[in-house]
Amino acid sequence: MISKAKTVYRALDEAIPLTEPLKIHEAMRYAILAGGKRIRPILCLAACELVGGNERLATPAACAVEMIHTMSLIKDDLPCMDNDDLRRGKPTTHKVFGESTAILSGGALLALAFEQLTEVEASSERIVRAVKELAKSIGREGLVAGQAMDLTSGGLDPNETGLEQLELMHLRKTGSLLEASAVLGAIIGGGSEEEIEKVRNFARCIGLLFQVVDDILDETKTSEELGKTAGKDKIAGKLTYLKVMGLEKSKEFVKKLKRDAREHLQGFDKDQVKPLIALADFIANRNN
Amino acid sequence: MISKAKTVYRALDEAIPLTEPLKIHEAMRYAILAGGKRIRPILCLAACELVGGNERLATPAACAVEMIHTMSLIKDDLPCMDNDDLRRGKPTTHKVFGESTAILSGGALLALAFEQLTEVEASSERIVRAVKELAKSIGREGLVAGQAMDLTSGGLDPNETGLEQLELMHLRKTGSLLEASAVLGAIIGGGSEEEIEKVRNFARCIGLLFQVVDDILDETKTSEELGKTAGKDKIAGKLTYLKVMGLEKSKEFVKKLKRDAREHLQGFDKDQVKPLIALADFIANRNN
Repeated sequence: MISKAKTVYRALDEAIPLTEPLKIHEAMRYAILAGGKRIRPILCLAACELVGGNERLATPAACAVEMIHTMSLIKDDLPCMDNDDLRRGKPTTHKVFGESTAILSGGALLALAFEQLTEVEASSERIVRAVKELAKSIGREGLVAGQAMDLTSGGLDPNETGLEQLELMHLRKTGSLLEASAVLGAIIGGGSEEEIEKVRNFARCIGLLFQVVDDILDETKTSEELGKTAGKDKIAGKLTYLKVMGLEKSKEFVKKLKRDAREHLQGFDKDQVKPLIALADFIANRNN
Repeated sequence: MISKAKTVYRALDEAIPLTEPLKIHEAMRYAILAGGKRIRPILCLAACELVGGNERLATPAACAVEMIHTMSLIKDDLPCMDNDDLRRGKPTTHKVFGESTAILSGGALLALAFEQLTEVEASSERIVRAVKELAKSIGREGLVAGQAMDLTSGGLDPNETGLEQLELMHLRKTGSLLEASAVLGAIIGGGSEEEIEKVRNFARCIGLLFQVVDDILDETKTSEELGKTAGKDKIAGKLTYLKVMGLEKSKEFVKKLKRDAREHLQGFDKDQVKPLIALADFIANRNN
């Protein structure tokens, strides 16, 4: 995982040079090179290798999914959204560069992500499929839909809204891009239809797993430990897994999702499965 | 031109149904179906026909460029950007739906634009090329770069900054998407390399033409006539063609650009050239 994270960092550093217009590029680099766990790009690279592709093939796609993720964080933090001052232990992008530059750099990251996909050394058919997958994961049925649901979820009654609605929101907000990250890797790596579907199902478990753990951390850790404002979901009255099923059942759910994720990878080469299992463990056991 | 505008309206209406999440879709439809001159999608359809393609082929791409254009208008109007209350004679998107929904619907339009491109019935090679062209026209070397330059252009000395800097800003802010609109049409219509280049050069003239006329209108018309806030560039101290070369020379420049645009279309079938010439005339003679 560490070597893959380094590969991604180097590729991102190269993909976003410090050039004119300077302020936009500074903001893009500030937001994306600041750190972060690189879960999505690592998932993309590992899925590519799982189906027999070389990591190098999927590197531009790995950069693309991290760019989309960063764009969504920049937006989430804006004053009119979550109004957050702290991200990864540092001031948020709009705090440093101003709101207008933050919004513009988010748009630039989104456009650059699609440009990156066209650089992939795969057949045009596979690239078109990857573009479609990524676009769907962002748009009105994906990330954006999840963010919209999240905005209006404050004050909802968990008994009435229930687990189904909560899962739909998270599947969209967090899950859709995680799913696309893995599927892009499998598409570009030359996976068969069956392999791509297995990877998709694995990634869906990871998406839920990620969100349940996020909800647990948000309520059980301090802002300092998280590197971002803790407890804000509770304060905003947002719907979380803890609110719906409590801490103990949430922890049990984490274990179940880990088992499910592993099951979806049956049939693949045991050595190639290891990085993905490690990633699932990392997500389940992370502290921030 | 009217029949092409109707084709685009119908296709946009279909591409963005009124579905969940409702508020996002309402905002997307409000912003894109409100009207507007549809110059970019018409340019896309006409360029497709110019190189011998059927209008139907380029319709998803025509929708895509209008989605990108609408996204850029939503962003331009935001409080942290131009802070505009009026667009096409109606309240701006954030005024009606709030800032967060406006920003999210802009992101959804951008993602949907790329999804639309993957629906085009052309070879995967041509689709990948179209995706690359569109992504470049939006990103840090295109639209976003132009918006960033525009934000910082207030208070610049026109004598010092000069025509070159002004043209670069407009080429990016307005020109890049107009260029991409035409080039997408030519790519999807099956144009040869030479034909695509001619269309690109024509579109570059149109891009400048559009901006010079915009600058003239901004200073010589009322807000009521324009359907948007007039004189705002002057108030903001922004660099405009009128500031750099005065009204008379700006009008002469309009004539020169019309001639140049026409010249780039030499060699094409005379009948197929007519819609593009009509579009250039429309841009030059428009009143809002």
